[in-house]
Amino acid sequence: MDTQELIKPLIQKNNTKILLVVLDGVGGLPVNGKTELEAANTPNLDALSRESACGLHIPVAYGITPGSGPGHLGIFGYDPLKNQIGRGILEALGLGLEVRKTDVAVRCNYATIKDGIITDRRAGRVPTEQSRLLTDRLSKEIRKIDEAEIIFAPGMEHRFAVLIRFPEPLKPDASLIPDTDPQKEGLYPVHPAPLSKNAERISLIVEKLISKAHDVLKGEEKANYILTRGFSSMPNIPSFKEAFGLSSVAIATYPMYRGLAMLVGMDTPAIEGSVEDEIRFLKEKYNEYDFFFLHVKKIDSYGEDGNFNGKVQRIEEFDRLLPEILKLAPDVLIITGDHSTPALMKGHSWHPVPVLLKSSYVLGRLCSGFSERECVKGELGIFPAINLIPMALANAGRLKKFGA
Amino acid sequence: MDTQELIKPLIQKNNTKILLVVLDGVGGLPVNGKTELEAANTPNLDALSRESACGLHIPVAYGITPGSGPGHLGIFGYDPLKNQIGRGILEALGLGLEVRKTDVAVRCNYATIKDGIITDRRAGRVPTEQSRLLTDRLSKEIRKIDEAEIIFAPGMEHRFAVLIRFPEPLKPDASLIPDTDPQKEGLYPVHPAPLSKNAERISLIVEKLISKAHDVLKGEEKANYILTRGFSSMPNIPSFKEAFGLSSVAIATYPMYRGLAMLVGMDTPAIEGSVEDEIRFLKEKYNEYDFFFLHVKKIDSYGEDGNFNGKVQRIEEFDRLLPEILKLAPDVLIITGDHSTPALMKGHSWHPVPVLLKSSYVLGRLCSGFSERECVKGELGIFPAINLIPMALANAGRLKKFGA
Repeated sequence: MDTQELIKPLIQKNNTKILLVVLDGVGGLPVNGKTELEAANTPNLDALSRESACGLHIPVAYGITPGSGPGHLGIFGYDPLKNQIGRGILEALGLGLEVRKTDVAVRCNYATIKDGIITDRRAGRVPTEQSRLLTDRLSKEIRKIDEAEIIFAPGMEHRFAVLIRFPEPLKPDASLIPDTDPQKEGLYPVHPAPLSKNAERISLIVEKLISKAHDVLKGEEKANYILTRGFSSMPNIPSFKEAFGLSSVAIATYPMYRGLAMLVGMDTPAIEGSVEDEIRFLKEKYNEYDFFFLHVKKIDSYGEDGNFNGKVQRIEEFDRLLPEILKLAPDVLIITGDHSTPALMKGHSWHPVPVLLKSSYVLGRLCSGFSERECVKGELGIFPAINLIPMALANAGRLKKFGA
Repeated sequence: MDTQELIKPLIQKNNTKILLVVLDGVGGLPVNGKTELEAANTPNLDALSRESACGLHIPVAYGITPGSGPGHLGIFGYDPLKNQIGRGILEALGLGLEVRKTDVAVRCNYATIKDGIITDRRAGRVPTEQSRLLTDRLSKEIRKIDEAEIIFAPGMEHRFAVLIRFPEPLKPDASLIPDTDPQKEGLYPVHPAPLSKNAERISLIVEKLISKAHDVLKGEEKANYILTRGFSSMPNIPSFKEAFGLSSVAIATYPMYRGLAMLVGMDTPAIEGSVEDEIRFLKEKYNEYDFFFLHVKKIDSYGEDGNFNGKVQRIEEFDRLLPEILKLAPDVLIITGDHSTPALMKGHSWHPVPVLLKSSYVLGRLCSGFSERECVKGELGIFPAINLIPMALANAGRLKKFGA
């Protein structure tokens, strides 16, 4: 029996508030003896950790480095192995597109083709400005193919995304089409042949899309062709409301994270600005929802850049804002990350992620601060991320007893 | 592969003794900074914990609050998710009935019916004394319906239980019958229609039972009808002997816990009295079994009442008796609870439960006392309850090597 099956019949409603703060990529590794969290001066997080249940969550599995998709699905209470999100979907979400159950999402590259052979898979890494103009042109020239609407979103350099939107929801397997990118220069593009019966209709449209795009781009010196990858449709997963009985809102300034929240049916208003702006929004909407997902992006960005001090400063900045959040006194407050991003590694990593859970029903007093090493001493232990939401529900009094 | 499948081929017999002491509901939460276990003066438990393997078990899953049934099944080595016990069975066991594989167990209420409509689902909460007399009358008037023997057990206030006992073991699905309790006053009782082919015969008997009971009770002002709920039969699970190769006895004064032990085929002599009486019985029977389940109920009862000091005193009382148990020097001694019952919450909770395992093969010296926070530091970590019995068997030298 999976976690959601187990808890669904136990869910009961009440008026409690649950706040999940995701400090993106917060987990780190020591540089000169201290991790980013240890090096940061965080009096508020430290005080809070002393009266909270602490531990570390494993986002996907031991040794597995999660992308942002699986990282968030786990802490949202969805098994990231059972609910895999296609690359096209993630790309489209990351570029700010609203993806629906009627859509096939595709990651695209501008490429150079000569005599039918791909001579440059990235069209000389087209500058972003120029790529944006090309995508605008495609967008104007190609609006519909057969019954499907075609939606373009420009990206960085040679990258962009396409949604193929049908009038009705897609059948299973409808997006089973191989990447047309041959992965090596000097080869023909791969034919987008359908890999299932349900993919046949989409395959025909993709063929036309590639050919029409080539017509539009054929005058370009380098970016005269498009390669398509990661065909995917929306995963069929229960909404946060269905699964956990919680009305929910995502407070996130980056489209990718709003997109991930949208996948599980959270409300995802477009928000801009700083973490302070996010907290202001949280306060404004505090009476309207049961569950709040507040996403703090920049900590991860500095980790990705290998900027240890920058990451430390972003953690300290959050710490200074924490008292504003605590004033709301949510019944359950969880602070954690979606994965670790040690500056030392300049990227995501597999390391378990510190977690702090504050409610009226914790032991506390086991950790003297909020860090990787202190959280090892905590009452939550080291546990799979998927258990975080059931624990939040329990601490909010939202789960009935199992069995008599 | 589940735990029992894994260990069954590894089981080997020897003359070791395993004693599992269940301090019902022992886990707690801090009140004025200390949990019940921390507040209690327990020199014997503390000394024992220093030379034991300690940790905390998760009875069912993260965030899940177990009833007594799933709580005990887990520490008996049975997956509480795969082996769910019906409400009727638990009620019958709790009222001291011996349930067999030939029985359908039913929870019943006295109710008031007027013109076919339920006007009071609890018959004005009939006083227990009066309810007992009514159940005696039913018991005398209704002894058999068709081929089935009907067995009544009186309960508290409006509650009682019935066993419908057939001459031969029941077929699968035989107890799939809806509750006749409409859950709200002002409605007709629900018809006990069979929900499966195998339930047809039982449905007919239930219909007759309700009608005969109404005949017996129709002169009563309030308790003139019975409502039936939680139709269930014995789960089909391997006995403790089959699963673990252990002859076993339950030493428990409360019928519910003897009943749970009976479910897994332990011997369940009727015992009355105090914990001292239980320990006396343990000593008397010490040569007769491999495995002893000794149940200490009252700690939970005070937790349920929200009586922090009462719970502390019951823990201290057990601590004073512990040396008597230690004199037996079992090869493996486990002391734990079936779930937490923090006085703060006046009920069962999801919190992991302290465990202490003493054998000749432990590390020890990691915890300075027996409490939730000390056990977090222990060598057993935080682990699913179902692993407790395999660890007991291993420490008793009763498991062979897996693989070559």
